[in-house]
Amino acid sequence: MSHKKIIVIGGSAAGPKAASKARRMDEFADITMFQKAPELSMASCGYPYYVGGFFDDRNKLLCTPTGVVRDPKFFWSAKGIVAKVNTEVTRIDRKNKVVEYTNLKTGEKGSQPYDKLILATGSIPNMPPVPGNDLEGITTLQSMQDADFLRKIRDEGKIKKAVVIGGGLIGIETLEALNLAGIELTLVELLPQLLTFLDWKMAKLVENYLKTKANVITQNGVAEFVGENGKLTAVKLQNGTEIPCQLAVVAIGVRPNVKLAKEAGLEIGQLGGITTNEYMQTSDPDIYAAGDCCEVTNIITGKNVLAPFGDLANLQGRVAGENVIAGNVAKFPGTIQTGICKIFDYGVGITGLSETKAKEAGFDYERVLNASPDKPGFMNGKLLITKLVVDKKSRKILGAQCLGPGDVSKQLAIWATAIKGNLTVDDMVNADLPYAPPFSLAIDHSIATAHIMENKLKGVFNGISSVELKEKVDRGDDMFILDARGADEYEQMRLGIGETLIPIGKLRERLNELPKDKNKEIITFCKISLRGYEAAVLLKHHGYKNVKILEGGVAAWPFEREK
Amino acid sequence: MSHKKIIVIGGSAAGPKAASKARRMDEFADITMFQKAPELSMASCGYPYYVGGFFDDRNKLLCTPTGVVRDPKFFWSAKGIVAKVNTEVTRIDRKNKVVEYTNLKTGEKGSQPYDKLILATGSIPNMPPVPGNDLEGITTLQSMQDADFLRKIRDEGKIKKAVVIGGGLIGIETLEALNLAGIELTLVELLPQLLTFLDWKMAKLVENYLKTKANVITQNGVAEFVGENGKLTAVKLQNGTEIPCQLAVVAIGVRPNVKLAKEAGLEIGQLGGITTNEYMQTSDPDIYAAGDCCEVTNIITGKNVLAPFGDLANLQGRVAGENVIAGNVAKFPGTIQTGICKIFDYGVGITGLSETKAKEAGFDYERVLNASPDKPGFMNGKLLITKLVVDKKSRKILGAQCLGPGDVSKQLAIWATAIKGNLTVDDMVNADLPYAPPFSLAIDHSIATAHIMENKLKGVFNGISSVELKEKVDRGDDMFILDARGADEYEQMRLGIGETLIPIGKLRERLNELPKDKNKEIITFCKISLRGYEAAVLLKHHGYKNVKILEGGVAAWPFEREK
Ligand SMILES: Cc1cc2nc3c(=O)[nH]c(=O)nc-3n(C[C@H](O)[C@H](O)[C@H](O)COP(=O)(O)OP(=O)(O)OC[C@H]3O[C@@H](n4cnc5c(N)ncnc54)[C@H](O)[C@@H]3O)c2cc1C
Ligand SMILES: Cc1cc2nc3c(=O)[nH]c(=O)nc-3n(C[C@H](O)[C@H](O)[C@H](O)COP(=O)(O)OP(=O)(O)OC[C@H]3O[C@@H](n4cnc5c(N)ncnc54)[C@H](O)[C@@H]3O)c2cc1C
Ligand SMILES: CC(C)(COP(=O)(O)OP(=O)(O)OC[C@H]1O[C@@H](n2cnc3c(N)ncnc32)[C@H](O)[C@@H]1OP(=O)(O)O)[C@@H](O)C(=O)NCCC(=O)NCCS
Ligand SMILES: CC(C)(COP(=O)(O)OP(=O)(O)OC[C@H]1O[C@@H](n2cnc3c(N)ncnc32)[C@H](O)[C@@H]1OP(=O)(O)O)[C@@H](O)C(=O)NCCC(=O)NCCS
Ligand SMILES: [Ca+2]
Ligand SMILES: [Ca+2]
Repeated sequence: MSHKKIIVIGGSAAGPKAASKARRMDEFADITMFQKAPELSMASCGYPYYVGGFFDDRNKLLCTPTGVVRDPKFFWSAKGIVAKVNTEVTRIDRKNKVVEYTNLKTGEKGSQPYDKLILATGSIPNMPPVPGNDLEGITTLQSMQDADFLRKIRDEGKIKKAVVIGGGLIGIETLEALNLAGIELTLVELLPQLLTFLDWKMAKLVENYLKTKANVITQNGVAEFVGENGKLTAVKLQNGTEIPCQLAVVAIGVRPNVKLAKEAGLEIGQLGGITTNEYMQTSDPDIYAAGDCCEVTNIITGKNVLAPFGDLANLQGRVAGENVIAGNVAKFPGTIQTGICKIFDYGVGITGLSETKAKEAGFDYERVLNASPDKPGFMNGKLLITKLVVDKKSRKILGAQCLGPGDVSKQLAIWATAIKGNLTVDDMVNADLPYAPPFSLAIDHSIATAHIMENKLKGVFNGISSVELKEKVDRGDDMFILDARGADEYEQMRLGIGETLIPIGKLRERLNELPKDKNKEIITFCKISLRGYEAAVLLKHHGYKNVKILEGGVAAWPFEREK
Repeated sequence: MSHKKIIVIGGSAAGPKAASKARRMDEFADITMFQKAPELSMASCGYPYYVGGFFDDRNKLLCTPTGVVRDPKFFWSAKGIVAKVNTEVTRIDRKNKVVEYTNLKTGEKGSQPYDKLILATGSIPNMPPVPGNDLEGITTLQSMQDADFLRKIRDEGKIKKAVVIGGGLIGIETLEALNLAGIELTLVELLPQLLTFLDWKMAKLVENYLKTKANVITQNGVAEFVGENGKLTAVKLQNGTEIPCQLAVVAIGVRPNVKLAKEAGLEIGQLGGITTNEYMQTSDPDIYAAGDCCEVTNIITGKNVLAPFGDLANLQGRVAGENVIAGNVAKFPGTIQTGICKIFDYGVGITGLSETKAKEAGFDYERVLNASPDKPGFMNGKLLITKLVVDKKSRKILGAQCLGPGDVSKQLAIWATAIKGNLTVDDMVNADLPYAPPFSLAIDHSIATAHIMENKLKGVFNGISSVELKEKVDRGDDMFILDARGADEYEQMRLGIGETLIPIGKLRERLNELPKDKNKEIITFCKISLRGYEAAVLLKHHGYKNVKILEGGVAAWPFEREK
């Protein structure tokens, strides 16, 4: 019996995972991994932290937990995998089941046959097609070389001003990294909001926070990179503004790297990624694909999406690695596009559908906002703001967005698992989570979120979003706005949208100060709108017919305040 | 229409929650809450952190997030609830629907009628029935008064030696608190392990850690409290040992406080708690109960259990509060006994069934151990040890235990939600969780745990527990033990159970050093048994028929090591 010949193209995340899994499935297969880049198994998601100085040893991005660098020697000795670095596969000859490759250092060419092929060619960063985009001082943060380049800038400490173009995850992570390097930063985003996978208001809250660290410009794209002697000196925006800088990092998204696949005639999806079935098999049964180069099914909508995430790359690689040896036994179920990112002292992320996406997908949904701490005050609880979206009829969780200085990661993990389990709001209302004061409130933030949603679905909590309220205020709508906080809280900070202060503890005795007309629109709120909710409930019991609660209260108000 | 008369007995967690929810359901009901203790709404779970000096302001245990102490004035003004503190209900007259009470300060007696009654009388701490148990210097940590007493000891700094009796959650939390107060501590536990809700080995790992902070004595109970002039001077153990000390804190569990309920003839369960249906309704349809005084159904086994947890008390109170007003509309689904506790720099907890409980309940289960970090090394990842138990046939998650310096809380929250969602191992194998280096590994610890379990169920990962291996070693079984780590790791630390070191990277070329007999038993391991697993897979492919992997490797070895 001759040994199976497995070829993997791409040596970063999906590729090495697939190769390693294939090896565990078959000790005697010939496994070769081709990698264009000089490094293997790069923890690309760690680049921003290397650049930002969270650690200094570059090798940490490339090594096993016990500190062994994953170079070709390692792959050969520990995994029995031939890894050819600096080697680009230039063509797939499907008819003869052969790949052709070029060593980028020596120029040497060669070809090698396969029984099964795995494509893990990843993605390519986009570059704005504007004048000057080849000036020195413009970079992406996509490769180890990019990371080295930016880290050197940190270490040299010469550059004082930089512009980050693109307000997505990588852009913001890079912003933090360069800020920590002592550089003055401007973030430029073409669209009206950062982090476009979030709903507008959630993104706005992040933006407000980010503005305490850097200049943030939205709804404005790059028109030109301006330079002198081939070196970047400024970024010129579409509205004419020029931002002087010596460095620009472009992070305006990535697209699947499908050149090889396309040329080989494999099916490419509408979004530009390689099409696979749930076994990670392409339109050619002998060719599998995994990671950023693929399209993947969104489990909730059933539609294909691009989901360039490191976790999915690994999981898909594992499925592909198993299937090339064992036949189609392992399935990849798709994604709910769960993602998270650290932004200075905030966490921010999403799992499942945003409100915008739920609407697009045609769901009849309800949404709610919960602003409340992750832990008790006496354990230094920190604020979390969660937006939950559920399907009205089935009451199933469709998505959750979460941000704040609190434990965002746990919240998202809970909702991601809830979505996986097809859980409804009602299931979460009495969830049995791990509670102790160092870790959560007695009623965990996620459960409180479910309570508020339950109340909303019951019609007991009639919410209004800050965006809607702001519109009403700007329009001069006739309404009574009730701030149910204490006088001291009001003195410290207030919205200034024409509200009347009646602390919740005085409301019962001061009901006469409310409009006589029981049909008049009343908006209640407090710091987080818990007392606002209690006030609304009280007023409803007293016959007020049109009471709404400002969701998330002062804590989640994204606009300017009077104070 | 006359107003509904609601009486709540108990003013700590379940009581106030029920009363508050009832108020939101009906603004015009007359709601009275009787509380024997002087305080209301105590965050009892926070006592250890107050004693330990995490914060100094006692009021933080009693106040709202905005700092208002929840005293009778607060309950009246903010919630319209009459709260009678220092007032014990002494009798429930079910026939006449009246409760009788005594003001413990004034001696005044009274009675008050109800339409619906809610029992939230909580639990009573157990006390060992041994001589001297009324000496000065012996306390529990159950009431605000207990917390004040221990906090004073911290502040005075006079006491140098203390004994904590009972190695459960509260005992260990108290141990930490007193340790932080600079007191030398001994922990005494009657049973062969601490934290009896964990499986032995998991508890042993906690014990090993705890021993770096205090003396720990297991399998030894208190025989006598020894004193002089009415003051504690030593604790005498069943084996005769005397431990000199000026303070003993007893934390040997709590039992439901059902005196009133029993005397009123309400149904009490076999475990000594009040019996309720899923609406939290007792055997008397006009009486509901919530919190520690109740028995509750374990969702996985269907059996009643005692689950004295603050989160459940609140959730059950909310259900009872809703149902006394609206009729039986809200259901409490039961518990999976999720609990967590901080132990110095460790978190430790469980959700669902331990192996012991799964066995007891008659499940045909599989279990696996995963020792691996929560985050990448370059982000200061910390170790987590998870034990997962699943039903073999349905492949559903039955339970997870987790401990270590890593992010235990998130792991348990994930598994608790997975159990709630009836998820199988296979669902978790490709879960889509929030990944970024500051929060997790690309393959989250929980997903890696599912991978190992998947491998085990497939027969690819043939595990052996450290307990089984230790027995075999002690028995002198003939086997070949293979340590697959690097030489440097071996030099630093090693088990010393007759193992042979062959680093995984050398294994393929040193296969000749393995036993010629392919049926010989081989045990492989490494630091966490990932390389151990790779070694085992390799050997199996080379025809070895009896290869086992030491689960959790060196990291989860609970016994003494050679080095
Ligand atoms: C700065 C940064 C931060 C990130 N942070 C996160 C995060 O926090 N969380 C998260 O989930 N994801 C994150 N990601 C995304 C994550 O890194 C990617 O999803 C993941 O690396 C994709 O893995 P892959 O193997 O599919 O592709 P890639 O990592 O892109 O690797 C593809 C490899 O294929 C090689 N290649 C391409 N074509 C050829 C060819 N013809 N021949 C030979 N080799 C070829 C390339 O050299 C490349 O190394 C981040 C990415 C970056 C850049
Ligand atoms: C130190 C400590 C740490 C803890 N840590 C945690 C943790 O980390 N996580 C967790 O989930 N749980 C924890 N718990 C458990 C949690 O505090 C309890 O589950 C919760 O307080 C139960 O609430 P309850 O309202 O049912 O009963 P209790 O809190 O016991 O309150 C019952 C109240 O009823 C009153 N009462 C009793 N009889 C009468 C009567 N006849 N008339 C009038 N009043 C009466 C009592 O005065 C008492 O205040 C901890 C408990 C303690 C003591
Ligand atoms: C590391 C890498 C080479 C994959 O190699 P791998 O051999 O599959 O390595 P892993 O450590 O993930 O796991 C090895 C095996 O051990 C198992 N394992 C993990 N922890 C274990 C433990 N504590 N005990 C026993 N087995 C364990 C895994 O399940 C896996 O087996 P399986 O896939 O057959 O189930 C690849 O993921 C990679 O290159 N990663 C770095 C780059 C990257 O991920 N970038 C993107 C994000 S920044
Ligand atoms: C606080 C306590 C008095 C309960 O009172 P409560 O009025 O129900 O207070 P809560 O703050 O929990 O919630 C009030 C309401 O606001 C809702 N709410 C919470 N956060 C909200 C937010 N951000 N926006 C809007 N509504 C919110 C809740 O869902 C709840 O309404 P619902 O039950 O009708 O759904 C009671 O839980 C208690 O005494 N706790 C302290 C003691 C304790 O829990 N000890 C044991 C653990 S240490
Ligand atoms: Ca993800
Ligand atoms: Ca719990």
